[in-house]
Amino acid sequence: MTQSVQDMATAARHAARRLAVTSTAQRNAALEAMAMALEARQEEILGANTLDVAEAQQAVSQGRMGQPLLKRLSLAGDKCAEMGRMVTSVAAQPDPLNVTQSATELSTALELYRVTVPIGVIGVIFESRPDALVQIAALGLKSGNAVLLKGGREAARTNQVLGQVIVDATTGSDGIPSGWLGLLASREDVGVLLGMDQDVDLIIPRGSNEFVRHILDNTRIPVMGHADGICHVYVDRSAQIGMATHIIVDAKTQYVAVCNAAETLLVHQDVAPALLARVVPELRSRGVVLRGDARARSLAPAAMDAATEADWHTEYLDLILAVKVVDDLDQAINHINEYGSHHTDTIVTEDRQAAEAFLRGVDSASVMHNASTRFADGFRYGLGAEVGISTSRLHSRGPVGLEGLTSYKYVLRGSGQCVGDFEGEQYRPYTHRPLRKTWTA
Amino acid sequence: MTQSVQDMATAARHAARRLAVTSTAQRNAALEAMAMALEARQEEILGANTLDVAEAQQAVSQGRMGQPLLKRLSLAGDKCAEMGRMVTSVAAQPDPLNVTQSATELSTALELYRVTVPIGVIGVIFESRPDALVQIAALGLKSGNAVLLKGGREAARTNQVLGQVIVDATTGSDGIPSGWLGLLASREDVGVLLGMDQDVDLIIPRGSNEFVRHILDNTRIPVMGHADGICHVYVDRSAQIGMATHIIVDAKTQYVAVCNAAETLLVHQDVAPALLARVVPELRSRGVVLRGDARARSLAPAAMDAATEADWHTEYLDLILAVKVVDDLDQAINHINEYGSHHTDTIVTEDRQAAEAFLRGVDSASVMHNASTRFADGFRYGLGAEVGISTSRLHSRGPVGLEGLTSYKYVLRGSGQCVGDFEGEQYRPYTHRPLRKTWTA
Repeated sequence: MTQSVQDMATAARHAARRLAVTSTAQRNAALEAMAMALEARQEEILGANTLDVAEAQQAVSQGRMGQPLLKRLSLAGDKCAEMGRMVTSVAAQPDPLNVTQSATELSTALELYRVTVPIGVIGVIFESRPDALVQIAALGLKSGNAVLLKGGREAARTNQVLGQVIVDATTGSDGIPSGWLGLLASREDVGVLLGMDQDVDLIIPRGSNEFVRHILDNTRIPVMGHADGICHVYVDRSAQIGMATHIIVDAKTQYVAVCNAAETLLVHQDVAPALLARVVPELRSRGVVLRGDARARSLAPAAMDAATEADWHTEYLDLILAVKVVDDLDQAINHINEYGSHHTDTIVTEDRQAAEAFLRGVDSASVMHNASTRFADGFRYGLGAEVGISTSRLHSRGPVGLEGLTSYKYVLRGSGQCVGDFEGEQYRPYTHRPLRKTWTA
Repeated sequence: MTQSVQDMATAARHAARRLAVTSTAQRNAALEAMAMALEARQEEILGANTLDVAEAQQAVSQGRMGQPLLKRLSLAGDKCAEMGRMVTSVAAQPDPLNVTQSATELSTALELYRVTVPIGVIGVIFESRPDALVQIAALGLKSGNAVLLKGGREAARTNQVLGQVIVDATTGSDGIPSGWLGLLASREDVGVLLGMDQDVDLIIPRGSNEFVRHILDNTRIPVMGHADGICHVYVDRSAQIGMATHIIVDAKTQYVAVCNAAETLLVHQDVAPALLARVVPELRSRGVVLRGDARARSLAPAAMDAATEADWHTEYLDLILAVKVVDDLDQAINHINEYGSHHTDTIVTEDRQAAEAFLRGVDSASVMHNASTRFADGFRYGLGAEVGISTSRLHSRGPVGLEGLTSYKYVLRGSGQCVGDFEGEQYRPYTHRPLRKTWTA
């Protein structure tokens, strides 16, 4: 049975309206059913996954696919049980819906509440990892959103079965409407999805830099995510050299292929000789290739290639680090605002005032003092499950948890009031008194 | 001196970064200077305005412009002083910046804060009212945003002088960078602005339905606003007829040309005879033209034209009301979700359960029980100055105050921590303990 993307989106919109009025218990019960089904139907899932993996292995042996992609594709081992546990952990999160954000008395017996609600219909487009499908389905359901999913072609069979398992398990569950989850089949489907700005409220792309950029360039629907992660470590004049070295090594090498890894090191000129003497051998011993500006190279000529303008703009996602010596804090801040991607940047300094100037002046989603950029992550930030990291300045910014999948509505409870009663001859002032009450439906 | 839009936007981006680090006192002082200058340079402003008004009067007499537009254009009388008072009242609002939204201990001496910051560069495009220029400049400055403004052609001279007065008054003020306010001159400039998604973070269109729709259709920059305001009053089976009549009359007639006025009346079939008998004469005596579906007309045949499908989609902004009799609450909710514009809708009922189902089930920015839709407004909601009303589900929804002009950043204060310290053999759990602290720079 194939459904057109348009039909799927219409079904998703209707489902979203019904999901929006489900109770916490109903959504959690459906999540538990999803978790159980992932374990119960493990053989079916692994059967499909084995076929995908076999095909991918061929592609790898023919040089059409990289080894890391193959690794992410496989659900062998404990992965099914792990997905089940992940769904259970999403169920255990606090309900992001029906949270009263503010309550105000406008006048006697006229009370205004601002309450969280789902966004509606969310399109998620992700590359190969099939566990991303399960994660986003779980987060979507928890937050009352309908989801339209398109996974990588390499994982098509696995995704098909996972989608069916989730649909079977949840749409039997009390209150959960059919159509809340739709699986897109082809690249053409994605093109159609990106054009449906009336029916889809948000697009979340998960994948490479080029992939996200392609999505951003091809839709008018709001996109939550980030293209580049060009993160900086700035070592200020009064930094502790040992601490700075520890942070640089962690930010660059602890996990290189991620958006919160450092790509550029900025060093205050006064501390550059001491810092580079210490950190350069540490980095080189870990296989890091350094590309320095003229001043940095003059301090460690044998250890650095020459950086070009392009290096300051580049997200390597690899064991490469660009290094620049700056005159002062201001030059560092300006460099980051100019060349960075507004993702995550850190200063290492013992000077509290310099730290505050950096934290305020750097226009990024996460700004840090004496900590590694690698902390910029939903789990580490305590947000529970992570939807992604956003570099947008609207809606959610930085690591996004379930809250980022919600909107709000204003609920006004009156007792017959009209605006005319408050104006002209009838003038009555509004009280605008904060209420310590929550809205409960 | 004319500046290209690109130069203006570059200047605005640089100014925005400097505005972001100004203190509350600096921004308020600049607002006070702005307020004083508006009074002090009143003659200059009125001189320009008189010329605009004279030209507009010609246009009106030749039938090229409507009388209401002319009225909105004029700053005669107390308008300059009024604009000054408005700016002073914006200065008096609480600072929306540097508000700590959350604080979490991730581990010992590793503290995470989520803090409000400006959005950055905001483009505002508005039709004739020149006081809109002053209002948005004041709100932008208060919230630390740079603004690029384009007003209506009819008010070109007035806007030019107002812009100059504001720039002169504020850029002399301590900490306020030049370039924070730019005035666009032509329709071509707007085209350029709408294409600058790297330099402009948000577009706010203020004007007619068609105007907003044109903006939405011609930019990839996020837009805050609403096109239609198709608001509904639903009178449930157990409504008090007197209260319902009062609310319908207010929602329809108290001020017809606004987005929160009611356009469609839905009536439960059981209460339709009694309700229509009471409300139809009331509405007709106020000049309201009624367009009913078959069932409504059968109850008041002489008083109603026949409604067509198009009526349920139409924002009249006029003394016209579409009327439909529905079978039950569910049909009312479905009609609103299908034909409405997700702006503001109200139910009149004595049945608490029906009210809750309506408040939860209707997918609109404002949902109300026993109150007029006309309350949906930033001032009435107690938000202070209003930026506009948004029907988007992302970022701000409903009436938007200064908070809607802010974003946030995460600030992490550490003492040398690295992610590697928390993983593998070094395993240390995150504490994720809420802190009762605020971040102060």
